[in-house]
Amino acid sequence: MAMASSAAAAPGPQEQAVINLVNSPQAKIQPAPVSAVRMGEGFWSERRAINRNVSLPTLLKQMEDHGILDNFRRVSGRKQVVRRGPLYTDSDLYKWMEAVAFVLQSGPDAELKTLGERTIDEVEAAQGKDGYINTFYNLERASERHTNMKGGHELYCGGHLIQAGIAWYRATGSRRLMDVGVRFADYLLANFGRDKKPIYEGHPEMEMALTELYRTTGKREYLDFAGYLLKGDQARLPLAQRDLVYLFTGKPFTARTKFEGHAVRAMYAAAGATDYYLETADAGISDTLQRLWTDVASGKTYVTGGMGSRAVGEAFGEPYELPNALAYTESCAAIANMMWNFRMLAATGEARFSDAMERALYNGINSGMSLSGDLYCYRNPLELTGNPDDRIRNPWYDTTCCPPNLERIFASLPGYLYGASKDGLWVHLYHASELNWRLRDGSAVKLSQATAYPWEGDVTLTVRPEQARDFALFLRIPEWASGVVPEVNGKALAERARAGSYYRIQRTWNPGDTVRLRFDMKPRLTRADYRVRDNIGKVAVERGPLVYCLEGVDQPAGAAFWESALSLKEKFTEFRKADMAGRPVALKARGVARSADGSLYSTLAASKAGEKPVELVLIPYYAFANRGTTPMQVWIPYVP
Amino acid sequence: MAMASSAAAAPGPQEQAVINLVNSPQAKIQPAPVSAVRMGEGFWSERRAINRNVSLPTLLKQMEDHGILDNFRRVSGRKQVVRRGPLYTDSDLYKWMEAVAFVLQSGPDAELKTLGERTIDEVEAAQGKDGYINTFYNLERASERHTNMKGGHELYCGGHLIQAGIAWYRATGSRRLMDVGVRFADYLLANFGRDKKPIYEGHPEMEMALTELYRTTGKREYLDFAGYLLKGDQARLPLAQRDLVYLFTGKPFTARTKFEGHAVRAMYAAAGATDYYLETADAGISDTLQRLWTDVASGKTYVTGGMGSRAVGEAFGEPYELPNALAYTESCAAIANMMWNFRMLAATGEARFSDAMERALYNGINSGMSLSGDLYCYRNPLELTGNPDDRIRNPWYDTTCCPPNLERIFASLPGYLYGASKDGLWVHLYHASELNWRLRDGSAVKLSQATAYPWEGDVTLTVRPEQARDFALFLRIPEWASGVVPEVNGKALAERARAGSYYRIQRTWNPGDTVRLRFDMKPRLTRADYRVRDNIGKVAVERGPLVYCLEGVDQPAGAAFWESALSLKEKFTEFRKADMAGRPVALKARGVARSADGSLYSTLAASKAGEKPVELVLIPYYAFANRGTTPMQVWIPYVP
Repeated sequence: MAMASSAAAAPGPQEQAVINLVNSPQAKIQPAPVSAVRMGEGFWSERRAINRNVSLPTLLKQMEDHGILDNFRRVSGRKQVVRRGPLYTDSDLYKWMEAVAFVLQSGPDAELKTLGERTIDEVEAAQGKDGYINTFYNLERASERHTNMKGGHELYCGGHLIQAGIAWYRATGSRRLMDVGVRFADYLLANFGRDKKPIYEGHPEMEMALTELYRTTGKREYLDFAGYLLKGDQARLPLAQRDLVYLFTGKPFTARTKFEGHAVRAMYAAAGATDYYLETADAGISDTLQRLWTDVASGKTYVTGGMGSRAVGEAFGEPYELPNALAYTESCAAIANMMWNFRMLAATGEARFSDAMERALYNGINSGMSLSGDLYCYRNPLELTGNPDDRIRNPWYDTTCCPPNLERIFASLPGYLYGASKDGLWVHLYHASELNWRLRDGSAVKLSQATAYPWEGDVTLTVRPEQARDFALFLRIPEWASGVVPEVNGKALAERARAGSYYRIQRTWNPGDTVRLRFDMKPRLTRADYRVRDNIGKVAVERGPLVYCLEGVDQPAGAAFWESALSLKEKFTEFRKADMAGRPVALKARGVARSADGSLYSTLAASKAGEKPVELVLIPYYAFANRGTTPMQVWIPYVP
Repeated sequence: MAMASSAAAAPGPQEQAVINLVNSPQAKIQPAPVSAVRMGEGFWSERRAINRNVSLPTLLKQMEDHGILDNFRRVSGRKQVVRRGPLYTDSDLYKWMEAVAFVLQSGPDAELKTLGERTIDEVEAAQGKDGYINTFYNLERASERHTNMKGGHELYCGGHLIQAGIAWYRATGSRRLMDVGVRFADYLLANFGRDKKPIYEGHPEMEMALTELYRTTGKREYLDFAGYLLKGDQARLPLAQRDLVYLFTGKPFTARTKFEGHAVRAMYAAAGATDYYLETADAGISDTLQRLWTDVASGKTYVTGGMGSRAVGEAFGEPYELPNALAYTESCAAIANMMWNFRMLAATGEARFSDAMERALYNGINSGMSLSGDLYCYRNPLELTGNPDDRIRNPWYDTTCCPPNLERIFASLPGYLYGASKDGLWVHLYHASELNWRLRDGSAVKLSQATAYPWEGDVTLTVRPEQARDFALFLRIPEWASGVVPEVNGKALAERARAGSYYRIQRTWNPGDTVRLRFDMKPRLTRADYRVRDNIGKVAVERGPLVYCLEGVDQPAGAAFWESALSLKEKFTEFRKADMAGRPVALKARGVARSADGSLYSTLAASKAGEKPVELVLIPYYAFANRGTTPMQVWIPYVP
């Protein structure tokens, strides 16, 4: 037992999770490593196969075509070219490399590994002797390093480099790419900090990277530098109020009372602060995180888990400012939302964080990658007029942060499903899969999950400890799942499950014991707080974790799209949409079509005339805009 | 009779209407001159008294303080100063002068006349020998004349000069100011046009002015030049597509299929085109006007009669793009809307145009001037959050086009009430007043209107021809007034009145005959076409011609403003709001307040809990934001 325990305390690189919390004092839950989870057939396996087979190779080609790799070759002298793209393109390659590493964590893939190693060659060769690496601030611009802290993205790129290196190390055991990141981190430590030159990030990201590097290497200075960044160096680097808002950095994180400014910056800052808290137990940071979570959850989160209402500044709006058509909702912001909630979950074990994670994952993140896998959303709006000029899915963006971010989140997904605490195992997300892991006492345990979730609500878990063992299973009961009656070995348990909590089953588990959960997958009508002015008089339709939408292409010819209103009186009929990838469960609903009488304004009484019944078809939101230009709406006018 | 007819055909300057259509071949209706209408006590007389006593003097002082008059003195050499303000400030003074002239058309006013004459002195002295006048393109900038046709506003300013001169001529019989305008117009004719140098307006306005100058002087070339401007000179002055959209000029007016671009420019262009049509019977223009009217009325008009949805470019949006809080709705656009519909009414005699006129006048125009008369709205949004930084009413704007425009429309208002066709007299707007005029055959007729409209719906008209005479009375039945049963001399007429039409009463009228109309002033719940996404699930409350709104300051302490929803089940109670100028009729309504449960999204079923009844108070929209910073909404969530 002592040996096993020690093995658990110092897992080998390939046994480390997406965030390695094995020695984190404030972690209630340690996530299971990607390598311990084998995904079964179903929803995410299909998406992940497309990610592996289409997205990763086509994006690498796009990056080659757009000069992103040549930017490294230029610095290393391997190619005489002009630097191309905005100053932060290095980070796009790093995120792609991290995604490849996560694929490798799920199992061997010689072809991808070779592609990954080739990019490591290019990156490694572009690093300076002093550890500095950035293809923009090099050669003719070397003297400009750290002169544009606000917009230069040097630490942001470095953070993604470090994360990619750690993921590669955990995938392969090779420190090669991580050492590039270590040299950059050491360059920072040598030059900047409280007793050296002052610095701030223009775009938070480095806190997560440095904390993970500390977890991986044990070098405390990395964590301390993350703390320095989180505190800001206002005495030496005062920032204007508008920059403090927009950048969400530069002053003590603990002075934050609300989310504002650039959504991705702010969410990455919160995720990094949570990482820092997990290692340090900083009570001020913990209080701030709770305050910020309430702020964003109570008034600044789209029903899709998307965040950032405003195109101007890619920013959070005021509370309840959640416009549908104008929603900015960058894919990266929804990803950051998931990453942050994953960390909050680890720190607390509270189901509200896994609920938020699941909402973002299935909807506002999942929508970001096309069904075909080679097109990406930067914005994920909740309404489209059907204007052909709105190119919502594209193979490439000049600022191409979202595509590789989507790829790394899908590739790392197995690492988000399970966790362990001192009391037992946790199931955060439901999907056909098998966990092959250990309890915290070091004893081996397998847990297999048979389900067609999210299409169906039936989940059977089979527990297989090496031998009979007393521990708890913590099963997430989603916030939307009422009336769940868990069964063990076919017998209903007496304690009713509470929606939005973890259901604890403490017992002696024998190999082959089964737990069955049945989630009600009946479509739900959801309303928003009245203060969301854009959603007054409208409902969203949800089924399980999925948000649904109406697309013009699915509606009957007679129903002018913008005149349709769902009628509540009718039940939904479910059917598989055979002509779409993944055959999603679609919904038919009886609605009302209103024929325009040509008058822009009319009396309420008069408006009831001219209504006619119509059958409407809803598809999951994540699949929107995959069939050409067509109007779409998530929040649907509702006629009682 | 022949004499009278000839007198009617050539009225003296002081008998000319706001637009003098006596000889316009396409005019179905000739408006009554301002001088023929005496306004009785009531709604508009109170507003007009404030306009005369507060607005006009304080705005003149503002213009002095901001150097607008000094700009003229600088050009005439009377003062050595630096030119101040944007390049179009001359037009602001001209509109103020036109407003003063309209006040004088209603009756003598020595003090205002003196102020007006002083400004004429200044303007006259600043005109060049060649007839050119513009305080920006003079002295050191003389060489730049007509080099910036897009943004220079030289013709726009000139148009307002001409209109002011005509109004002054009609008020006083003096041609002095009009001659300044004539010299500028003649300068244009001498230099520009089809066979001379090409020109286009950057801001339509001149077409109205030149057509009116033609009507006043009989010089056909002015009308032809208006036609040249309306057609555009694309062969010699091609414009980029975006400029053709934004400027709403530069290509043939008849090629327009929809309203787009800058709202005031587009509406002024339409008003000018209607003037041109009234003189020329150009069928292409008539067709275009009908098409454009349908376009704007069916999807681009706010319930307040405001127009121009977008702040960017002060522009029209797409059809049904009518956001409430973001509504740009410049006061000048609502004024232009009224001016255009007044012309369309004259051309057709159709009540839909007077309905549109009344909607704009009572709401989106009327809101533009504060109850105190010394503050003005540039924007007239339909929702305010209550942010103290939103300074919606101000005494001065750098671009101060709206304040004098509001002043001239209020000053000229008596000229919008009545008209005459060959068949008889028309009543377009209801207000206590007396018309002292002639039929088209030249015979004298008086028509007095006794009413407390818009507060009350009872209207009694007393007809006093010189002697018994057979003619028709055309009485507007507003679009919202159903069930009206007109009475003559106390007897109900057999033919029912149709809402949204002119009711014709043809008979031999004896002096003292009375007509009584009773309009139902019960508050109405109005809905918008479903395609106006911002108004789904909401209603507007209207009473007579007035749109109402909720202001936070009036609501009970317990009702959080943004959580209130009007309940339809309750009737409205009316009361006079004694603490506001004009003691407007306010409404009490039973509503529902929803207490926030902290969850941004919840099931529709769950949301019904936590509702509590509350009494809401509505005031007329035009009076919004007169009592400090407070939230406001016109479109109110509605619970069936």
